[in-house]
Amino acid sequence: MIGGGQGAFIGAVHRIAARIDGEYELVCGAFSSNAEKSKASGVLLGLPADRVYTSYTELIEKEKQLPEDQRVQVISIVTPNHVHFDPSKAALENGFHVILDKPMTFSLAEAKELEKVVAASGKLFCLTHTYTGYPMVKEAKQLIKAGKLGAIRKVYVEYPQGWLSSFLEGDDNNKQASWRTDPGKSGIAGAMGDIGTHAFNLAEYVTGLEVTQICADINVVVPGRKLDDDGAALLKFNNGASGVLTATQIAAGEENNVKIRVYGEKGGLEWHQSDANSLTLMYTDKPTEIWRAGGGYTSTFAQHNTRTPAGHPEGYLEAFANLYRNFALTVKAGLEGREATAEEQDYPGIQEGVRGMAFIENVIASGKSDKKWTEFTI
Amino acid sequence: MIGGGQGAFIGAVHRIAARIDGEYELVCGAFSSNAEKSKASGVLLGLPADRVYTSYTELIEKEKQLPEDQRVQVISIVTPNHVHFDPSKAALENGFHVILDKPMTFSLAEAKELEKVVAASGKLFCLTHTYTGYPMVKEAKQLIKAGKLGAIRKVYVEYPQGWLSSFLEGDDNNKQASWRTDPGKSGIAGAMGDIGTHAFNLAEYVTGLEVTQICADINVVVPGRKLDDDGAALLKFNNGASGVLTATQIAAGEENNVKIRVYGEKGGLEWHQSDANSLTLMYTDKPTEIWRAGGGYTSTFAQHNTRTPAGHPEGYLEAFANLYRNFALTVKAGLEGREATAEEQDYPGIQEGVRGMAFIENVIASGKSDKKWTEFTI
Amino acid sequence: MIGGGQGAFIGAVHRIAARIDGEYELVCGAFSSNAEKSKASGVLLGLPADRVYTSYTELIEKEKQLPEDQRVQVISIVTPNHVHFDPSKAALENGFHVILDKPMTFSLAEAKELEKVVAASGKLFCLTHTYTGYPMVKEAKQLIKAGKLGAIRKVYVEYPQGWLSSFLEGDDNNKQASWRTDPGKSGIAGAMGDIGTHAFNLAEYVTGLEVTQICADINVVVPGRKLDDDGAALLKFNNGASGVLTATQIAAGEENNVKIRVYGEKGGLEWHQSDANSLTLMYTDKPTEIWRAGGGYTSTFAQHNTRTPAGHPEGYLEAFANLYRNFALTVKAGLEGREATAEEQDYPGIQEGVRGMAFIENVIASGKSDKKWTEFTI
Amino acid sequence: MIGGGQGAFIGAVHRIAARIDGEYELVCGAFSSNAEKSKASGVLLGLPADRVYTSYTELIEKEKQLPEDQRVQVISIVTPNHVHFDPSKAALENGFHVILDKPMTFSLAEAKELEKVVAASGKLFCLTHTYTGYPMVKEAKQLIKAGKLGAIRKVYVEYPQGWLSSFLEGDDNNKQASWRTDPGKSGIAGAMGDIGTHAFNLAEYVTGLEVTQICADINVVVPGRKLDDDGAALLKFNNGASGVLTATQIAAGEENNVKIRVYGEKGGLEWHQSDANSLTLMYTDKPTEIWRAGGGYTSTFAQHNTRTPAGHPEGYLEAFANLYRNFALTVKAGLEGREATAEEQDYPGIQEGVRGMAFIENVIASGKSDKKWTEFTI
Repeated sequence: MIGGGQGAFIGAVHRIAARIDGEYELVCGAFSSNAEKSKASGVLLGLPADRVYTSYTELIEKEKQLPEDQRVQVISIVTPNHVHFDPSKAALENGFHVILDKPMTFSLAEAKELEKVVAASGKLFCLTHTYTGYPMVKEAKQLIKAGKLGAIRKVYVEYPQGWLSSFLEGDDNNKQASWRTDPGKSGIAGAMGDIGTHAFNLAEYVTGLEVTQICADINVVVPGRKLDDDGAALLKFNNGASGVLTATQIAAGEENNVKIRVYGEKGGLEWHQSDANSLTLMYTDKPTEIWRAGGGYTSTFAQHNTRTPAGHPEGYLEAFANLYRNFALTVKAGLEGREATAEEQDYPGIQEGVRGMAFIENVIASGKSDKKWTEFTI
Repeated sequence: MIGGGQGAFIGAVHRIAARIDGEYELVCGAFSSNAEKSKASGVLLGLPADRVYTSYTELIEKEKQLPEDQRVQVISIVTPNHVHFDPSKAALENGFHVILDKPMTFSLAEAKELEKVVAASGKLFCLTHTYTGYPMVKEAKQLIKAGKLGAIRKVYVEYPQGWLSSFLEGDDNNKQASWRTDPGKSGIAGAMGDIGTHAFNLAEYVTGLEVTQICADINVVVPGRKLDDDGAALLKFNNGASGVLTATQIAAGEENNVKIRVYGEKGGLEWHQSDANSLTLMYTDKPTEIWRAGGGYTSTFAQHNTRTPAGHPEGYLEAFANLYRNFALTVKAGLEGREATAEEQDYPGIQEGVRGMAFIENVIASGKSDKKWTEFTI
Repeated sequence: MIGGGQGAFIGAVHRIAARIDGEYELVCGAFSSNAEKSKASGVLLGLPADRVYTSYTELIEKEKQLPEDQRVQVISIVTPNHVHFDPSKAALENGFHVILDKPMTFSLAEAKELEKVVAASGKLFCLTHTYTGYPMVKEAKQLIKAGKLGAIRKVYVEYPQGWLSSFLEGDDNNKQASWRTDPGKSGIAGAMGDIGTHAFNLAEYVTGLEVTQICADINVVVPGRKLDDDGAALLKFNNGASGVLTATQIAAGEENNVKIRVYGEKGGLEWHQSDANSLTLMYTDKPTEIWRAGGGYTSTFAQHNTRTPAGHPEGYLEAFANLYRNFALTVKAGLEGREATAEEQDYPGIQEGVRGMAFIENVIASGKSDKKWTEFTI
Repeated sequence: MIGGGQGAFIGAVHRIAARIDGEYELVCGAFSSNAEKSKASGVLLGLPADRVYTSYTELIEKEKQLPEDQRVQVISIVTPNHVHFDPSKAALENGFHVILDKPMTFSLAEAKELEKVVAASGKLFCLTHTYTGYPMVKEAKQLIKAGKLGAIRKVYVEYPQGWLSSFLEGDDNNKQASWRTDPGKSGIAGAMGDIGTHAFNLAEYVTGLEVTQICADINVVVPGRKLDDDGAALLKFNNGASGVLTATQIAAGEENNVKIRVYGEKGGLEWHQSDANSLTLMYTDKPTEIWRAGGGYTSTFAQHNTRTPAGHPEGYLEAFANLYRNFALTVKAGLEGREATAEEQDYPGIQEGVRGMAFIENVIASGKSDKKWTEFTI
């Protein structure tokens, strides 16, 4: 693991996600750019001292020198955005599979470069867009793919948070707020990069469509903030459907209830994280249905990503673990010389990362434009 | 009553709304432009034959000739949009108070003209924006007015319906679909006029703010349809807040769940019609609260518009009845020579009607424009 | 109307229920045993002075003397329980149809006597068990009747209220609390009579089954109270199914969320008043369904008792109005010499009243018994 | 681990629960009484062959012989009920801490015996009553303890399942159904032992009260079944409060939505597993509150048992993991020579196990009795 030392939120989440299904063992880490902090974190995590490194370059170099059956196989990178590209490139080029936190890179240019690196390396790559790991999100995708709603006409996706309703970034104790609102670490976008990309990815994943045009209203609401903390975008999709995406971090009182609704000719569906094990299907002519994780009637995709019988709620950590597990199963398939199943391969990768970075650049450009529609370009 | 003959939806709703609190008695009507249908409707409603008229002009003329203590006092107009202005003008100018269904007129020009007519007539005027009749919508307004959320920053209002997901207007039996999609009867807007105006009115009513700019995506989704059946708009408000309004009639499977969410510096609130007796208040630092109609802690505005103790759900018809009742109480106050209370006067009127018609014209103009922002002009 | 003067809760509800569908006109009343209060209430309700009476005996006597086309046809009796039997008997025996508030009488003996009076009178009789007036309660009954759940195995019905959590009956201003906890006015039961009978009626109505055995725990929770304010009962039904009924008025914080769940061999259903327009159907092998009032797929019984399209919530007052309306339609059918339809006749009557009073006597007896099971006897 | 070989449900859950927080490492196992199955399971779980045993006696014997720093410290026992007591006794007496699945033993006599064994051994013991591991269940307990609701008056606890609605135990492939309905493996109770004990434990844990009397209706609903699959019980508590407990496995269509509601003098609360991260608090005089896992306002107990910020749902596996984690922290505290904190020690143990087995014997006895109340005896 690279990054994720003491005090980091997402590093701990990655470690739990990796542990849940017993497919990973944490064997080494460079947990902080601060050598002492990295060492201290390694001790806490029970690693032997010689596998705790003081930088990602050291980690990659030293691990590479270990015998193949001892060295790390998959490197998880959970640093802030500006330290995504370099360690990913180094890891891939030195023969390691990579799991990387989103958004993929600091800029779209880096993303396109990383795409080439992945292709050249022949290594596997996973980008942790958590929400596509939920079984009922996967069910939604499968149902739409199977034509259950008919042609898609309308997509609403929203990601409301309230935690940045006041100016927290001045507080040294709030590392989250500090780096996420810092253009030097996050890139050109704040809320749009942190959660807007999740919403965008969710919309494209569930519908199987691609955004072609964006018209965005991007705001910095809290005085003194350097990056957007709120935004909304009108969308056009490649089949002619339209949509609305909202992502905000100043919706005071909101937690993290990402939500998607999709409507086709024959019906609609709704999923939201606060009731993550349910998927609502509605029709013009018959009763609304509540599809449930663990239901015997669900697709192989939903079932593959569920551990317990219906009524035993699984949540965010299990959704995250589904990414890790599917990636591990795909890595394993490679080791075993077989092709991974469609269910195993169903995790976000480099394509999603490139489109996510394109979303950031396009949505911010649109926010600054006087023109209504901005073409979605990569 | 003018309009609302057999087969009309909203006419029956108006009659129930008028009856619920016993403040009105139906004394006469011109229920259809078809004389026979008008007569037949009058019989069904138990009116004496001589008070059932074959046209609104006849109604106004004949009623005016009756002795003051016998003639109708308030005329309810529930015709399609293209027959709103003329009968309203005639009624007002002949000394009758008027209750009119929304959207107020066929065009903004008519709306501005009607505003002058109302002012000149000295008569009272009510526009039936039903949703502002709900006690918990009134509570939301009062709480925001009292500063409970701090300065408002973000407004989301949505009105999803699915009933026009297919081409129904060809069906003679579907009068609703036919006139609402007919530019000759509805005006320049379909969904935006029918339900977009409700959403717009709800947003302005609850927040106490005014929309100043609009950026809209207006769509005709169902092939062959003549007016918009779907739309979304980015909004700017006069205090700097931003918002998103969506209104659609092609969200297949959706019923009529109009919903508003408002966020300020200190917290947020949410109301939606499918749980109309609850108002959710959320905060950054304490538990979310569910305020309930009938709660002893609610404002005089909420209590004035509630008939039963908490837990006895009131719904759409009671919200509609609140408009009728408050209008009646205001009329009565005039007859009694006293000023109506703030609670009694809290019903939508001519100002809301003019702004609603301006919304229609501005949102449709924005939909056709290449420019991102269209100024909200009246 | 007999009873229901100023300050009474249920009298006002009855009047609204009667007005909603325009099938009734309030023509006379004896609103209070206090002559002055009766007169004052009559004035407020806009009745002519000569149709406001000082006692129910006067009302019946004088109305009987009026010409048939002027006199009242249906008498609504909304007095406390100890004044149910006498006016009902007098009204029926003098040729008036009767609508009576529940519980039907002061004792089971009175109930059985009233059953004979109804039979002898040839007049129609309605008991206002409001909850069976909801369209989705009717739908539940029809679905079970049609075998949708298979043979019924388990019934849970609950009626939680919290308004009597403290000793309110000492307060002169709380007439509701005072008479409902007074054995001289309510009879032998408090909560079990006031709301337990509703729960009991709902269970028998929805399932079409009859309770045969009861095992009850009846409590007086608030110190100083004279009647039960809390209770629970294990039930056995005539098909071998079992059930649990709870009714309490000391569940602090609860409003009025009566709820029923029924399970059969093939699936289950749930209805609760706080989401009254939905009926949840669940199955062992397919997704749960949400059936909605106004849905085109619902039975003639649900549709007959719905006024608005799906998504326009109707509530408690409309459910109450459905009783009034169906009773009126049945009365009308009689006047027209036709048989009322099954939908029209679907309102609670004398049989439900007798069983309700038997429930009260049996449940209270069981509460005092050391034996586990008490046979349900009438 | 003892038990939990291929095909077992709860063994896999225990392993995930142990892994989530990285406090445990699976080092050895006797996964099945069938030696070959045990070996195969061990291989799948990646254990070295010499740490996979063919019986629990072998496991205990061999592990004991290993050097202290290599041998297993905590033994998890996840076998059917009839194989709970012997391995637990052996493990404890040989110096291992024990985590045991519920219900604790085959009979109350065994439970009382085990209580002595635990005391004599000086080892720690945890019983996996999962639901008390949820942060908002812990919050409920703390709020009641702090007097937030005043004296408790009423408790409703329910555990509805539908998976045994038909006769599954004949099917060889359904091991779950087979042993849980087999008196030779489960003991004298079916549903009451499997889920009734969870409901009972939840009620006593949350309220801090003890049941003193039971009046139960115990049913075998599915023809041919050997143990109860449905039951309901009236309860009396040691402070005079009353309650109702229901547990059923024939509520067709229900999943696993265990739910508790508690009412005191000042208010009530509700928690149910299908919305596990919320706790509803209701009051007689102010708005209902929704307390949320991760909320900054929650107790140290809730916060200690939450891994992610509010809005990142944790579920059943995390609740289970909380038991494992708290047990590990308590074991660790012992190793470190410090007293475990109250939060760390907050996991179910031998006392809860004895009371649970007493519940089974008392509720089954009550079910057979003609007397209304059965004293709760141990």
